[in-house]
Amino acid sequence: MIITMKKNAPEQEIQNLVQSIEDKGVKVTMIQGANYNVFGIVGDTTVVDDRLITANPYVDNVKRIAAPYKKANRLFHPLDSVIDVDGVKVGGNEKIVIIGGPCSVEGEESTMQIAKEVKEAGAMMLRGGAYKPRTSPYSFQGMGIEGLKCLYKAKLAYNMPIVSELMSENKVDEFEEYVDLIQVGARNMQNFDLLKALGKCSKPILLKRGLSNTMEEWIMAAEYIMAGGNENVIMCERGIRTFETYTRNTLDLSVIPIIKSKTHLPIVIDPSHATGKRDLVESMALAAIAAGADGLMLEVHENPECAWSDGAQTITPAALKTLIEKGRKIANVIGREM
Amino acid sequence: MIITMKKNAPEQEIQNLVQSIEDKGVKVTMIQGANYNVFGIVGDTTVVDDRLITANPYVDNVKRIAAPYKKANRLFHPLDSVIDVDGVKVGGNEKIVIIGGPCSVEGEESTMQIAKEVKEAGAMMLRGGAYKPRTSPYSFQGMGIEGLKCLYKAKLAYNMPIVSELMSENKVDEFEEYVDLIQVGARNMQNFDLLKALGKCSKPILLKRGLSNTMEEWIMAAEYIMAGGNENVIMCERGIRTFETYTRNTLDLSVIPIIKSKTHLPIVIDPSHATGKRDLVESMALAAIAAGADGLMLEVHENPECAWSDGAQTITPAALKTLIEKGRKIANVIGREM
Amino acid sequence: MIITMKKNAPEQEIQNLVQSIEDKGVKVTMIQGANYNVFGIVGDTTVVDDRLITANPYVDNVKRIAAPYKKANRLFHPLDSVIDVDGVKVGGNEKIVIIGGPCSVEGEESTMQIAKEVKEAGAMMLRGGAYKPRTSPYSFQGMGIEGLKCLYKAKLAYNMPIVSELMSENKVDEFEEYVDLIQVGARNMQNFDLLKALGKCSKPILLKRGLSNTMEEWIMAAEYIMAGGNENVIMCERGIRTFETYTRNTLDLSVIPIIKSKTHLPIVIDPSHATGKRDLVESMALAAIAAGADGLMLEVHENPECAWSDGAQTITPAALKTLIEKGRKIANVIGREM
Amino acid sequence: MIITMKKNAPEQEIQNLVQSIEDKGVKVTMIQGANYNVFGIVGDTTVVDDRLITANPYVDNVKRIAAPYKKANRLFHPLDSVIDVDGVKVGGNEKIVIIGGPCSVEGEESTMQIAKEVKEAGAMMLRGGAYKPRTSPYSFQGMGIEGLKCLYKAKLAYNMPIVSELMSENKVDEFEEYVDLIQVGARNMQNFDLLKALGKCSKPILLKRGLSNTMEEWIMAAEYIMAGGNENVIMCERGIRTFETYTRNTLDLSVIPIIKSKTHLPIVIDPSHATGKRDLVESMALAAIAAGADGLMLEVHENPECAWSDGAQTITPAALKTLIEKGRKIANVIGREM
Repeated sequence: MIITMKKNAPEQEIQNLVQSIEDKGVKVTMIQGANYNVFGIVGDTTVVDDRLITANPYVDNVKRIAAPYKKANRLFHPLDSVIDVDGVKVGGNEKIVIIGGPCSVEGEESTMQIAKEVKEAGAMMLRGGAYKPRTSPYSFQGMGIEGLKCLYKAKLAYNMPIVSELMSENKVDEFEEYVDLIQVGARNMQNFDLLKALGKCSKPILLKRGLSNTMEEWIMAAEYIMAGGNENVIMCERGIRTFETYTRNTLDLSVIPIIKSKTHLPIVIDPSHATGKRDLVESMALAAIAAGADGLMLEVHENPECAWSDGAQTITPAALKTLIEKGRKIANVIGREM
Repeated sequence: MIITMKKNAPEQEIQNLVQSIEDKGVKVTMIQGANYNVFGIVGDTTVVDDRLITANPYVDNVKRIAAPYKKANRLFHPLDSVIDVDGVKVGGNEKIVIIGGPCSVEGEESTMQIAKEVKEAGAMMLRGGAYKPRTSPYSFQGMGIEGLKCLYKAKLAYNMPIVSELMSENKVDEFEEYVDLIQVGARNMQNFDLLKALGKCSKPILLKRGLSNTMEEWIMAAEYIMAGGNENVIMCERGIRTFETYTRNTLDLSVIPIIKSKTHLPIVIDPSHATGKRDLVESMALAAIAAGADGLMLEVHENPECAWSDGAQTITPAALKTLIEKGRKIANVIGREM
Repeated sequence: MIITMKKNAPEQEIQNLVQSIEDKGVKVTMIQGANYNVFGIVGDTTVVDDRLITANPYVDNVKRIAAPYKKANRLFHPLDSVIDVDGVKVGGNEKIVIIGGPCSVEGEESTMQIAKEVKEAGAMMLRGGAYKPRTSPYSFQGMGIEGLKCLYKAKLAYNMPIVSELMSENKVDEFEEYVDLIQVGARNMQNFDLLKALGKCSKPILLKRGLSNTMEEWIMAAEYIMAGGNENVIMCERGIRTFETYTRNTLDLSVIPIIKSKTHLPIVIDPSHATGKRDLVESMALAAIAAGADGLMLEVHENPECAWSDGAQTITPAALKTLIEKGRKIANVIGREM
Repeated sequence: MIITMKKNAPEQEIQNLVQSIEDKGVKVTMIQGANYNVFGIVGDTTVVDDRLITANPYVDNVKRIAAPYKKANRLFHPLDSVIDVDGVKVGGNEKIVIIGGPCSVEGEESTMQIAKEVKEAGAMMLRGGAYKPRTSPYSFQGMGIEGLKCLYKAKLAYNMPIVSELMSENKVDEFEEYVDLIQVGARNMQNFDLLKALGKCSKPILLKRGLSNTMEEWIMAAEYIMAGGNENVIMCERGIRTFETYTRNTLDLSVIPIIKSKTHLPIVIDPSHATGKRDLVESMALAAIAAGADGLMLEVHENPECAWSDGAQTITPAALKTLIEKGRKIANVIGREM
């Protein structure tokens, strides 16, 4: 951490600040410049709150050198984490995992049908929304626990782990019972009480990146869950908000090499939400595989135009099959299997 | 709502779509263009889910004309809503309200002291954080319920309504007991389960705008609370995320005239979080008053450099006093009191 | 184009507006709503200036349905445009083209050396900056015309068309003489006088997307050049500005399928500027190929750490060779050659 | 400037880098951390190109402490610069200046009329666009030199300095002849060849902030002009691009105190372009005055709905008069005149 003091900082104030920082058990080194005095702080700077130091009226600015995360940091965990989702392994050199299913669960029959079809197309996990984060209170809010039960039946029938989004701390028990990989949605990425609750949960977490969050903030959200005791976190990019209007969001594929170098966690890409348009899903999915993604999450529905939500970005089981066939060949080029 | 169909849409598909929309009780009118067929939908379009229509493969795009909110909409409630916060009125032609206090509650003694001082400086409500949304799990997370109790004692002593941030549905009862104006923080603006819980709450809500949210999304968050039954919502702008690095966030003062024309709700400005720098607080506060704000929320602390959080953006009680004196004169110029 | 009038618009004002629009040779249709009157305009709406209509105080808003571009529009030119750059064809089903070379031209000897090496690695065109857009007036501004001459000599020696950035209308003649594909940089994407000058130029244009521009604005910049008479435009994505700090910019690969569906122009990806980090270049380049790019532009230098500019994002000729080998296999999977 | 080296950097590489930096005449100090080696650079770091250092493969990152600008830097020029625009003084404690006039010049008669009216309302300079930066090549592009001549006649008649936008280096002579304050538009803020040309120009420059540029980039654009020899630069904020759709741009008033603390240059606010809506102009103009702006630039037209461009954000002379009356009172509160 580097602290720059204002030119006019009195000697006594500088000494007080240095003392207060060294009291945290870190070492302070000074650089005297023409217009600034600069301090370097050496040691475990995650214990030093940079915003506290910024409050000192003689401090010009504070810059962090070391990453603010420890548990998620590749520097301290050089090996890839492989997350086990009820038998399906994600990350490292494991097979690239395909997670498919409808945006919203729409009933038992349709869930069984789509589970069968995505499995036949090559998907390894089943996704479906039972609780839906909707911008409008007047839109369909999801089937709730009945939706989770539909997914659970499909799991028993087709032996596919279930992925579904949790929106409330109060539903953690429900999800522990029916869901294998608990999704935190983009809008809840910094719902810190939810992250803390998930830190005490036994199931792995699929952590979506917030709509306008940096990768560092996203990793810090993973750090919240990991610091709470649950180290089984899979990162999921679903597009970020930009000025572009031709797509729903902008898919940021550079997260793939970066999450892999900064952390030891697996990274999954969701091209459905990222683009918002089914015509763009295949090309972005293949690009994600070429860039080294550990998995793909895709919205799939028998009749996308009849889906209860997000049909515009939903592909058919037949399109999923084609995508997987091409994807396998690309995976082979970069030394992965799918 | 305007629906544009693709050029090649078959007649039968067009008829099916029109029928499905008219089944919702709205009227459909058609415009035949050279390259497009366009439909206008007339009636209460809040019942029509535009994303559902977009899913139709023959639909090119859907644009909403009428606002998606009803309860918050000025069109249907021409008079200003004035929100009563335990006796202090906010909005309409009421006095511009000043909410002051520390970022974090730091104990009983300091809370009593700061309450006394902000009251003497001219503030009408006391703010303080008991539960803190922190980016890092290793940062101070707030005093919790003990913090709320400190605020409550200050309220009894100085007769100032209390404003504090709620981060979890599970704490609503606690806040009902100790807090007069419940703040929803920027990161929870789209925590829909929290919004639903607050819809059933008896206390007024101070709803902060999300870091990267549009005004429409913000009003829709208010609509969630109002649709749940709690119509006492005060909007609070606290700066949005932009590319700028010289400020913590970018204060968007255009929200003042816009929230007042699109909705009937009061609008409060928080220049402390918006700028992140105490040197900018006074000028932005005066600007907010000149633009017509119904209130200001300001971080105030005896010794900002010793504040447990956000000291860099905190002003002293003396600075608050000066700000209020200047602010009163500006308020008079535009026909308001403070 | 859809025009929504305010509720209180007097009948006479509505009639005047309709008349003034129909005078442009388009047809106006009306939809009467409960709270709004809405007009649809049918015909060639590129002649109607939507900002002019918005100025009418009785107009609530104006939304464009048809794209505002004609020359670049796929709707009116269903076949892919293939651009001939001094014998190298770009677009359609032509081979994916690799453009390699240093960020800045650094002298004749080094240019000849790097040209030899990128050619051997498999590149088909040589890039190099002679005029450099630098944020600081105190940074190296490029070799100017001497740089162009170095590139030209390398072209003669290795038979590779030359790509270089033009920053000023006053240098068009120079570029006509020495350069085969004239690059418009991101910061000049809306330098309309430069675009107009290039509309009269005989050489093809490589048009980079502006740092914060939408695809529609980017296509409109191409439209400026094409409307001026030069229809040989290649689009080039080089990353957009987002809140992310771990990368220099955010590469938006969704432009590939979208530019191909909205326009008939070829699309080239520049992963060097998009990421700003050499470790990310290969994965993003392979992703671009998988997504269907018509070409790649890459910064290549013998000793990236000694490059006069942008060394951090520059790869070695050896790395280029490896990238091309993998890229060829991915190209084959999606039915392209490279 | 602070340089962080990677953990594995060999001793020899570190020494080479230190040597190469010290060769620039600055001093290097080292801080040894557990996971990083960090260097501080002391002296005139504007001569050190941080991107060059970043290219070193053993460098993790480079952070600048001192501002990259010198000529514009308040640190080296503690007194306010007051810019003389043909007799009207801008900045320091001078009167807050009002610049009014139409978006586009529309002919001699209308220019004379509007000049008369804005002068009567209290404006001190006349603005008008003769060359218009339009997104579409099919939109009205301005009257060109004939427009400048209209403005010049109005100047002679009403004794008001003229402000107009220059889009091309090739027109500098024309502007030297007819215009008193040459405007650089938002889209040309980083048109570096234009900035260099203006550095040699005798007239003061009104430099608009780019749509997505940081204040540091904006000040660096001023630095380009000043480094070229023309130190008469007035900064102009006209709103930045954000995700908001209810306004054309988002007005960032925090630029006022920041530009005044970081630089010694005057700052003018353009609420017309910033908001895009005439109903928002007055409140944002008053807010700008309260925040300490040195001037306002406003689009004014007799019949906004008939203006040839940007009528939606244009106010009438009567509205200008009311705005100025209120503005004067607010100016007095903060100790300024208008």
